[in-house]
Amino acid sequence: MNTYLDCIPCFIKQSLEAARMATDDEKIHEEVLKVVMTHLRSISFTNSPPELSKEVHEIIRYITKSKDPYKKAKETSNRMAKKRYPHLKKMVEESDDPLLMAVKLAIVGNVIDFGTSNRFDVVDMIDNVVKKDFYDGGYTQFKKSLCNTKTVLYLADNSGEIFFDKLLINELLKQDKEITYVVRANPIINDATIEDAKYAEIDKIATVIEGDAGQKKSTPGMVLDFASKKFLELFKYSDMVVSKGQGNYEGLSDVNRDVFFMLVVKCPLVARDIDGEVGSLILKVKK
Amino acid sequence: MNTYLDCIPCFIKQSLEAARMATDDEKIHEEVLKVVMTHLRSISFTNSPPELSKEVHEIIRYITKSKDPYKKAKETSNRMAKKRYPHLKKMVEESDDPLLMAVKLAIVGNVIDFGTSNRFDVVDMIDNVVKKDFYDGGYTQFKKSLCNTKTVLYLADNSGEIFFDKLLINELLKQDKEITYVVRANPIINDATIEDAKYAEIDKIATVIEGDAGQKKSTPGMVLDFASKKFLELFKYSDMVVSKGQGNYEGLSDVNRDVFFMLVVKCPLVARDIDGEVGSLILKVKK
Repeated sequence: MNTYLDCIPCFIKQSLEAARMATDDEKIHEEVLKVVMTHLRSISFTNSPPELSKEVHEIIRYITKSKDPYKKAKETSNRMAKKRYPHLKKMVEESDDPLLMAVKLAIVGNVIDFGTSNRFDVVDMIDNVVKKDFYDGGYTQFKKSLCNTKTVLYLADNSGEIFFDKLLINELLKQDKEITYVVRANPIINDATIEDAKYAEIDKIATVIEGDAGQKKSTPGMVLDFASKKFLELFKYSDMVVSKGQGNYEGLSDVNRDVFFMLVVKCPLVARDIDGEVGSLILKVKK
Repeated sequence: MNTYLDCIPCFIKQSLEAARMATDDEKIHEEVLKVVMTHLRSISFTNSPPELSKEVHEIIRYITKSKDPYKKAKETSNRMAKKRYPHLKKMVEESDDPLLMAVKLAIVGNVIDFGTSNRFDVVDMIDNVVKKDFYDGGYTQFKKSLCNTKTVLYLADNSGEIFFDKLLINELLKQDKEITYVVRANPIINDATIEDAKYAEIDKIATVIEGDAGQKKSTPGMVLDFASKKFLELFKYSDMVVSKGQGNYEGLSDVNRDVFFMLVVKCPLVARDIDGEVGSLILKVKK
């Protein structure tokens, strides 16, 4: 997905938020905004939003001298999700269709996000998810695809959300799938890294890899130009690819293979691109 | 009210919106954003938001070569409100407390706004306004103040909204008040000018003046440094001042006289400053 002019105010809003997470010094907040605006004057809109976001957050980290402005926010999300995990697990186990419930909850977990302007309440969403049937053909296609699948490449999005992913990974393991769970190699916004995967003990049930290993800075969304060799190989040969979140969608929406995108739509431009509404839960395969 | 760093992304978002209203040429939209960002890197945050907004919209008009990018939007708002006016008038006339209903509707009319990020639905608001009693002490103070009042200086905000103001002006006229209705001298966002006041025939029931006559560019909110002599005189000597909308609040919140502010809160910073919530209807006197 290309970057649009509408992304500019969003990048700036996010820069201010990240700067405030990194320091209380208002002079630094102001400097961050000024340098980010200077940078945004010369960007190329043919790059995808995750690529530009990477550049913006590089500036933020440099000026605030913080390697990981979202560290505390990520820890809070993880703790909150961990606490909720036994309840969510029970919801899946007691459901008539545990796989469907796990898919729904994995998508709902994507509301835990600091990388977008629109925020939704995860508890509200969990309550709603049980009542509604969200998917047109998406879930049917997903189940059908699973029948011929041994290897699943599962792209994580955010910390906290990873506990919701764990529910779905557990269901996939019951069907004897082999899961490779892809996290970012470096901190970027609140995206999950290997540290988060270990905190959720996903490394004990799946192979965890860094999708962009070898790169010094991660993009908040998988972009093949920045991917590791290992990832590219798995991306090519895995039977199924599951991609969580907007960032990964923005980076992979135009690739030349089937990908099952699971996300909560938070931005009107993604909504238009994916043919959904802001706030809606999406399970869609793009070919 | 001072400008905050949070206003920066908001100014940029609004610039894009205004540029799109003025032209379909995406190259021009991009140029507007770039020049606005360049300008915003050197602003002083001790100026109020309307002063900075004036500068931003000057850039937009210059680059798009459009004297009034919101012209069509204003005409649409006016037409829509004119159509609704007989129904609203009936609501006031049939109410147990016509003055209260007119005040409520005058405030609801303030949702018609293109100068803010948060948008609300005016029809929804009209329905809700009848059911709820919004004001703590505001309306009581307003009524009490009216008892000792002959002259009312009424600061308009947006086109469309002016028809809602007309309801309140009519009620005030029933109490033999003399109304001076203040509009902007030049087009700025969707703020009402003399043309709009004439379209709503407010010039037939009140004295209409341009608050910033003599200035080449208007601020989207009254700022005393930019006010006309006539306005400053009336502002000093009128028995009561009624100020509609966020822009006028931002410009006048720190002045040294009683002002009855009537507005729908659309921005979290104004919400904090005025001690209300985003989306709430405010009638508040600041001393």
